[in-house]
Amino acid sequence: MISLADLQRRIAQGDLSADGAIAQSREAIATHENKIGAFVCHDPQIGAAKAGPLRGIAVGIKDIMDTADFPTEMGSVIYKGFRSRGDAAVVMALKAAGASIIGKTTTTAFASSDPTATLNPRNTAHTPGGSSAGSAAAVGAGMIPLALGTQTGGSVIRPASFCGCAAIKPSYRLLPTVGVKCYSWTLDTVGLFAAGVRDLAHGLAAMTGRNELLPQATVPTPRIGVVTQDFAGAPEAAGAEALRIAAKAAERAGASVRTLAMPEIIAVAWRAHPDVQEFEAHQALAWEYRENYDAMAPNLRGRLDESKGIKPAVYDEAMRITAAARAALTKIFEEVDVLLALSAPGGAPKGLGSTGDPRYNRLWTLMGTPCVNVPAYVADDGLPVGVQIIARYGDDAKALAAARFVEEALARG
Amino acid sequence: MISLADLQRRIAQGDLSADGAIAQSREAIATHENKIGAFVCHDPQIGAAKAGPLRGIAVGIKDIMDTADFPTEMGSVIYKGFRSRGDAAVVMALKAAGASIIGKTTTTAFASSDPTATLNPRNTAHTPGGSSAGSAAAVGAGMIPLALGTQTGGSVIRPASFCGCAAIKPSYRLLPTVGVKCYSWTLDTVGLFAAGVRDLAHGLAAMTGRNELLPQATVPTPRIGVVTQDFAGAPEAAGAEALRIAAKAAERAGASVRTLAMPEIIAVAWRAHPDVQEFEAHQALAWEYRENYDAMAPNLRGRLDESKGIKPAVYDEAMRITAAARAALTKIFEEVDVLLALSAPGGAPKGLGSTGDPRYNRLWTLMGTPCVNVPAYVADDGLPVGVQIIARYGDDAKALAAARFVEEALARG
Repeated sequence: MISLADLQRRIAQGDLSADGAIAQSREAIATHENKIGAFVCHDPQIGAAKAGPLRGIAVGIKDIMDTADFPTEMGSVIYKGFRSRGDAAVVMALKAAGASIIGKTTTTAFASSDPTATLNPRNTAHTPGGSSAGSAAAVGAGMIPLALGTQTGGSVIRPASFCGCAAIKPSYRLLPTVGVKCYSWTLDTVGLFAAGVRDLAHGLAAMTGRNELLPQATVPTPRIGVVTQDFAGAPEAAGAEALRIAAKAAERAGASVRTLAMPEIIAVAWRAHPDVQEFEAHQALAWEYRENYDAMAPNLRGRLDESKGIKPAVYDEAMRITAAARAALTKIFEEVDVLLALSAPGGAPKGLGSTGDPRYNRLWTLMGTPCVNVPAYVADDGLPVGVQIIARYGDDAKALAAARFVEEALARG
Repeated sequence: MISLADLQRRIAQGDLSADGAIAQSREAIATHENKIGAFVCHDPQIGAAKAGPLRGIAVGIKDIMDTADFPTEMGSVIYKGFRSRGDAAVVMALKAAGASIIGKTTTTAFASSDPTATLNPRNTAHTPGGSSAGSAAAVGAGMIPLALGTQTGGSVIRPASFCGCAAIKPSYRLLPTVGVKCYSWTLDTVGLFAAGVRDLAHGLAAMTGRNELLPQATVPTPRIGVVTQDFAGAPEAAGAEALRIAAKAAERAGASVRTLAMPEIIAVAWRAHPDVQEFEAHQALAWEYRENYDAMAPNLRGRLDESKGIKPAVYDEAMRITAAARAALTKIFEEVDVLLALSAPGGAPKGLGSTGDPRYNRLWTLMGTPCVNVPAYVADDGLPVGVQIIARYGDDAKALAAARFVEEALARG
């Protein structure tokens, strides 16, 4: 993979030109893209900006985000050839920081669950996950140092886990969703994919102008609570192994690590997530669903068919549960700095029939808390499995610092 | 003005066809539009839908909301001729309820403060207010029974006050903003304009499928707290008179009415509103501001120039204040059912140089509470002044019921 932080350092030291850094991505795309299929379109001529902390950084943008310079097709024939007038707010944030938008990455239709043709760069017989399939695969394949995705259920953290790269789903609305196709306004969260945790921190700090997110010289030793999410079912063997290894490595590195039982309201919130998601999706995708029914991707259409007529009272109750669960979770963060949980049940499923299961992700999307994926284990089939480090809402700097602690602990073995 | 509830009743009783109701709006537009200029474009051929609670209801849509059948030009040359692919979620909600989208109404550029050419239907020498200028003027002039607007500072309640119609800014996100151009995601709220409070209730209930919003047979007598908003400065004479008359009428009708002092955090939140608004606007309008600077409307551009470089820490503190103020306000609603406050400092300003002052509105937008404008007083120059009834977040039914109580009390004189 291409490290964003390494590129920044080499450019700053004069060892690499910004244009040279972009050229490295252009060449990597020329090498890998035919096999992986991570991009909907890309610009083989793009150069570097003159200034900014992200000059020389080639970025892939999930194809549900508006871009003035590329079509935005939402992974759906309904938006074939659609051109937005302007750039999404996060695309402008990247440009203002000097990044080069090198192309649009594949997405399941409207960021739901209908698989794309993108292959997993670690084992091409497997899915890269979704919905941010192309962004995870492009970073995981070493084509680009940074990509943007979105998560409504588990669409950032899960594909990062499957493709073996780092990713952050920041606190809700730390990054704006203006110009990003909506599925559920309470859940949709823009996230970043990069080679490692430091790379994420540099990328997010540059996009937000929040220097407190930058990696600090010393990494504090966190108090970690392990959450097994039993309400979401048991993991596969590879998943259980990833969580065990990460917890052990953190403990060996000096962290206090203990398994935390979650209060019942947390499990109730996990069950309520689909009610929030589908009630809002019926409004957010009303034009697509009602006026383009036959052109809708089948999984998404089926999900909307099943939840059709969901009542406002069901949604209101789900939102009440959400508020109560968020309050309960805030209390838990008085006892520990961060939580450690699985990013996915196991390695990426075989074939392209499914993008995998978001059951270990959706709670944290509903809670709005920052989550960082760190690759923790690689199974015999070459498929990685990640763990996620979760901090209190608004504490993205702490999530990144603790994720770096776990990443370094795992590297020491 | 055309009453939505009256049209519904006559259509249901067979006294009027749904097409006949639409024809009434088409004719009213033909009569008044040349003088008022409330529409950017409209469809003189549109007919009625076959079914739905809003069949026969012609609706005007503020031109920052996506419509598949009309251009969406945001009140700015930057979006000249722009066609969205689909309809905004609220437009689809109207269509699903059987309404006919008759046209797009004028808006200040990106719903900020640069005046449109629309005239006030009560006195054409005056502004109709903004930013939802065309929607307020079209309903106030009796051209259409229902129109949609948005409020970020005071863009629904203030123009309704100036144009003498009823309006509701519902609880934050009761109506989705998907497909509505964003200025500030924490503040932007879709609202409705109609002839009276019953009309608003029928419109909002049909759009949301929430029958609890429909007018009840008996109107409960509310406990009312009058809020003078001294932190926002003193009103003009006409404004003070409107608030005095409304409070007196409610008291005479049997309501308990008392003036409430607001805790200091409420005034602090009022002052923090611009920090939330402009910090988010710099991201939401980044493409427009940075890549189309010369084409930006001057007031909006000036506002963004002034707030350029606003720091994340300032925004974070404003959001912290907002959360504290919302909690304090929730406590106040343990003592009273609703608050009564001015909708604007006085009547609509003369000329088209300014859309008026949102200083009595912005606090309630930041609080996310439902607000209903009720016309309360007409000055000698023919210009109306309204009052707003404000309920607890999520209590839109109570806001509408209390507004109806005040409206009926004022009608009895």
